[in-house]
Amino acid sequence: MTTQQLVQQIQQKKSFLCIGLDVDLTKIPQHLLELEDPIFEFNKAIIDATHDLCVSYKPNMAFYEAYGLKGWQSLQKTINYLNEKHPEIFTIADAKRGDIGNTSAMYAKAFLEDLNFDSITVAPYMGKDSVEPFLAFENKFAIMLALTSNEGAFDFQTKNADGEELFKTVIKTSKTWKNSQNLMYVVGATKAEYFAEIRKTVPNSFLLVPGVGAQGGSLYDVCSYGMNDEVGLLINSSRGIIYASNGKDFAEKAREEALKIQQEMEVILANK
Amino acid sequence: MTTQQLVQQIQQKKSFLCIGLDVDLTKIPQHLLELEDPIFEFNKAIIDATHDLCVSYKPNMAFYEAYGLKGWQSLQKTINYLNEKHPEIFTIADAKRGDIGNTSAMYAKAFLEDLNFDSITVAPYMGKDSVEPFLAFENKFAIMLALTSNEGAFDFQTKNADGEELFKTVIKTSKTWKNSQNLMYVVGATKAEYFAEIRKTVPNSFLLVPGVGAQGGSLYDVCSYGMNDEVGLLINSSRGIIYASNGKDFAEKAREEALKIQQEMEVILANK
Repeated sequence: MTTQQLVQQIQQKKSFLCIGLDVDLTKIPQHLLELEDPIFEFNKAIIDATHDLCVSYKPNMAFYEAYGLKGWQSLQKTINYLNEKHPEIFTIADAKRGDIGNTSAMYAKAFLEDLNFDSITVAPYMGKDSVEPFLAFENKFAIMLALTSNEGAFDFQTKNADGEELFKTVIKTSKTWKNSQNLMYVVGATKAEYFAEIRKTVPNSFLLVPGVGAQGGSLYDVCSYGMNDEVGLLINSSRGIIYASNGKDFAEKAREEALKIQQEMEVILANK
Repeated sequence: MTTQQLVQQIQQKKSFLCIGLDVDLTKIPQHLLELEDPIFEFNKAIIDATHDLCVSYKPNMAFYEAYGLKGWQSLQKTINYLNEKHPEIFTIADAKRGDIGNTSAMYAKAFLEDLNFDSITVAPYMGKDSVEPFLAFENKFAIMLALTSNEGAFDFQTKNADGEELFKTVIKTSKTWKNSQNLMYVVGATKAEYFAEIRKTVPNSFLLVPGVGAQGGSLYDVCSYGMNDEVGLLINSSRGIIYASNGKDFAEKAREEALKIQQEMEVILANK
C-alpha cells in the first residue's frame, strides 16, 4: 500500500484509527472457545463489525506465538482474511523485531512477503543494518520504536544522548538510512508535547500512536501537536475496543467503542 | 537450568561454545531437501555430531518464522529433541523480543514455558517493564542485548548517554530490576577491550558473545578481558560451524570446526 492510498482511506472513512488484535483466550467470550479456531473467529467478528470505522489492524505477534502452531495458523488466517476481504486496510505486524542484517532479512521476508503484511514494527537498538532489510520492499513500511507508551520508555529512550533525548537521535539517524521513506515511527501518546518536537524532524512521516485511552493519553492533545497536512497519525486502541464486552455482544460493543473514537476523529478532521 | 549446572557442564566438557542453529534452506545440503522436515533433520545431525563439544545451542527464531507453520514445527521438534536427548544443554531462543509488560509476558510464556527453552534473548529499548516478565521464571534466563557485534551497534549503543556509553547504562540500570539475577548479556566480540569495563559492573553474569571468527573477533582477547572465576562466557559460532560443508559430510565437517574451537577453549581453561 502507498502512503497516498492510506491517506485516501483516512479521508474516506473520516478515521485514523488502528485496532490492535491482541487476542488473549482468557479474555474472549466463552462461547467462542468451542469453535475450531477461537482466535480467528474472534478476529473475524471484530473485523466484520469495525472495518468501516478504522483504517488499520495491528495483530501483536506475542499473542499468536503464545499459542504455538495453532496461534501461527490463526495469524495466517487473520491476515489472509484481511488481505482478501479488505485489501484497503493497512495491516501492521506488531513484532518489534530487529537483528543483524541477514537475520532481519529473514524476518522481513516472513512478515512483509510471505504473510504479506503492509508493515512491521521494528526495534532500533541494533542500528542501521538491523532495520534497513525491512525497508527494501516497495510500498511496505517499517514502523520503528521511537518513544513508547510504557513506563520503561523513560529508562533509556529519554536519556540524554550526545545532547538530546535518545529517541530524537534514533529518529534523526534513521533518516540517513537507505529507503528511509519507508519508515514510520511509534510515538506513545503519554507525553503529547513531544509530538511537536518530533514533527520538526519528521514532518511528513506517519506516526503510530499507542497509549490513547486506557493508558491515559489524550486524542486531542496528540492531534493538536502531532497531526500534519496528510493527518500523519494512526491512533491505536486494542483492549478498549476488542474487550468492550466478553458476552455474545462482544462485536457489537466493540463497534460501539470504535464508533465513539471514529466520531471524535471526524470532528478533529473537520476542524483541521 | 541453574548457573551452577551450566558451569559444571563447562568444566566437564572443557568448552564454553554455543552453536547457533540458523538454518537457511538455501545453504543446507541438497540431499536433505528431499526429507519431510529438512530443517529438523539438519539440526538433529548437527546436534548428534557436536553435543559433546558445546554447552549450548541457539536457534535464531527468524530462520524458523521465515518458513511459517513448517518452520515453527521444525523449531518445536528441535527444542523437544534437545530437551529429551540432551537435557544438560543450555538452550537459547534467540528472539530479541521486548514489548509492553503484558505482551512481553506472552512471549516469555511461549518461549520459556511452552517451548521450554532455558533462556531467551531480549531487547532493552523499552526498558524495565518490557524485560522483567522474562525474569520471572526460576532457573530460566533473559539474555539482554548490551553491545552487539554488527556494524549498527555503533549507531546508538555506544552513544554517550548521561556521561557513559548507552550499553553501560543499559547494563547498570538492568541490575536494579526485579530478579536481575536471571539476566545475562549479549556482548559482541568485536571490541574486546569493552569486556574489562563491563566486568566492573557485572563481574558474575554470564555473557553471550557473538562475533568470534567470521565477524573478526578474537577468542583469546575476549577471554583475557571477559572471563571470570566461573568462566562466565558463552562464545557463539553459527555459520562457521553449521555450514562448514554443504555436502553429505556436513555434520562431520561441523564437528571438525566445533572441535577446533573446543580445543582452543580447553587450552584457555587449562591456562586460567
